[in-house]
Amino acid sequence: MSGGLSVHGGRLAEARSRFGGAREDWLDLSTGINPVAWSGGATADIDWRSLPDPGDLARLERQAARYFGVDPALCCAVPGSETGLRLIARILGGRGLHLPLAYSTHADAFEHADPVASLAQLPAAPGTLVIANPNNPDGVLRATEALLNLLERQESGSGWLIVDEAFADCRPEHSIAGHVASGRRLIVLRSFGKFFGLAGVRLGFVVAPTELLGQLRRRLGEWPVSAAALAFGTEAYGDAGWIAATRRTLPEQASRLDAVLKRHGLAPRGECPLFRLVETSEAGALFIRLAQRHILIRPFADHSRLLRFGLPNGDAALGRLDAALAHG
Amino acid sequence: MSGGLSVHGGRLAEARSRFGGAREDWLDLSTGINPVAWSGGATADIDWRSLPDPGDLARLERQAARYFGVDPALCCAVPGSETGLRLIARILGGRGLHLPLAYSTHADAFEHADPVASLAQLPAAPGTLVIANPNNPDGVLRATEALLNLLERQESGSGWLIVDEAFADCRPEHSIAGHVASGRRLIVLRSFGKFFGLAGVRLGFVVAPTELLGQLRRRLGEWPVSAAALAFGTEAYGDAGWIAATRRTLPEQASRLDAVLKRHGLAPRGECPLFRLVETSEAGALFIRLAQRHILIRPFADHSRLLRFGLPNGDAALGRLDAALAHG
Repeated sequence: MSGGLSVHGGRLAEARSRFGGAREDWLDLSTGINPVAWSGGATADIDWRSLPDPGDLARLERQAARYFGVDPALCCAVPGSETGLRLIARILGGRGLHLPLAYSTHADAFEHADPVASLAQLPAAPGTLVIANPNNPDGVLRATEALLNLLERQESGSGWLIVDEAFADCRPEHSIAGHVASGRRLIVLRSFGKFFGLAGVRLGFVVAPTELLGQLRRRLGEWPVSAAALAFGTEAYGDAGWIAATRRTLPEQASRLDAVLKRHGLAPRGECPLFRLVETSEAGALFIRLAQRHILIRPFADHSRLLRFGLPNGDAALGRLDAALAHG
Repeated sequence: MSGGLSVHGGRLAEARSRFGGAREDWLDLSTGINPVAWSGGATADIDWRSLPDPGDLARLERQAARYFGVDPALCCAVPGSETGLRLIARILGGRGLHLPLAYSTHADAFEHADPVASLAQLPAAPGTLVIANPNNPDGVLRATEALLNLLERQESGSGWLIVDEAFADCRPEHSIAGHVASGRRLIVLRSFGKFFGLAGVRLGFVVAPTELLGQLRRRLGEWPVSAAALAFGTEAYGDAGWIAATRRTLPEQASRLDAVLKRHGLAPRGECPLFRLVETSEAGALFIRLAQRHILIRPFADHSRLLRFGLPNGDAALGRLDAALAHG
């Protein structure tokens, strides 16, 4: 029903070409990116001219590892967690396994991938199971214990478990990253751009056993991320005040989005405060009605009853969504 | 003799830890990066907050393809030409072949790679031959005709030819990129950061048959380069005035570097104006003497008689090198 708009969020240019309006007219709720970006970027000192120094890369990885609660030797910066997953999938080889409702790259990263009907009945043949926690787009949050059980199941069959924690920053107590270790078949992906609201930087991290990180580094080379990624990431991951405040305010904002959605008969789902999923038989029509009012949300090509709403930035944006739903 | 300094240029932090001095005290001549960077970066409008739009990526690739003189359908942006080579090498698989004196990634990108003693006597078994034109670090510039002969030789044995044109911007008439086509076994790599002096951006291009680019795009994903790479690259490749002026002034500066080197008994080699190679039995001692004066040049772990000098930025820097060589 909506072309590329139902493949990935953030495609405002395509939305504009279909529904008109200038860039600044649109309220883009099609992604799960924090609308209140980390503000240190405006004053960060970026050295665009030199090749990034290996010492600066090591410093970024130490800072990020401290934030994730992992050994820095297990933490490798990548130009976006999406690229990181694609590279890891090819290094591991073999078949990918993913949830039926999952981020599309969980399937596309592998040469061959299949959805699993149920985590209780994984196929016997070994494969790499990819699960996002919290999951995108339904926001389901799994307990560490359940994931560790899946890990044991995968290890007993010579498979791997990849936990995509791209949206985990608000719930650090649910991260499984501290369980990554040499000899275990667990890999964790982290994203910089979503929680810090700077998706254009292209920065993510792969937390994995050192043998695997060696292969990943060899594919990426000496300078895997830009000077901006080094500058922003190193400073932002150390900005404890901003991080704590954002972990408080995002759930408050999400509760207010929930109230608006419920007022209009929609039942929001999910435990990630950066987005909410709703299911409605009116999904296709609602997407178009909001787009005609220049509000972009996220439909799903393979799930025609689902819509994902990103978090609006403040009262004015939330009020605009409220009004559009009322008149829709 | 010099640790990581003889593996890649640009490692000023390591040089400072060994030879002292503040960052601003050092004259870094260890890379082949244009010391006079494209200046549009200071005013470029970078949208760090959104995911890069696919339309903006296509626009960058069209602009770059026009500059390279190739079909945009054959041109894929990558986060640095070094990463591009590493990914392509793994996609092609098989053995790499490289010149004995070459950029170290030409060997490291492949799981297995061998130096070729002579281009006139390539091994019979198929492999991927990587040649930089002009070559780094000796600046040797090969005629298109000679490269096309090598391509035919490679194609007849089911091998591939990769021409690394990371330093080709000053000699566009020597680019072989226009010969890349579906059905041919030719791949060309281009770099943004060297000629435009913005190595921290991490932007390069792979020019290759579409079948191969499809595989490359699948490994990189939807957002292969940062918002800054999109903004800078699109504007800089279209800045015909800056490009023409830089193609004039770099060779003039290189001639002045040649004069200084010759005055001190060194015989500069190479046809790339961004660097010069010298061979001397005093290489190890000269590297240290210059480093003690906080001038960093590039030694080579496997070639103890060679030193590469990057282009100094203007008269003051050239004079400082001149004085250091005189008192060395």
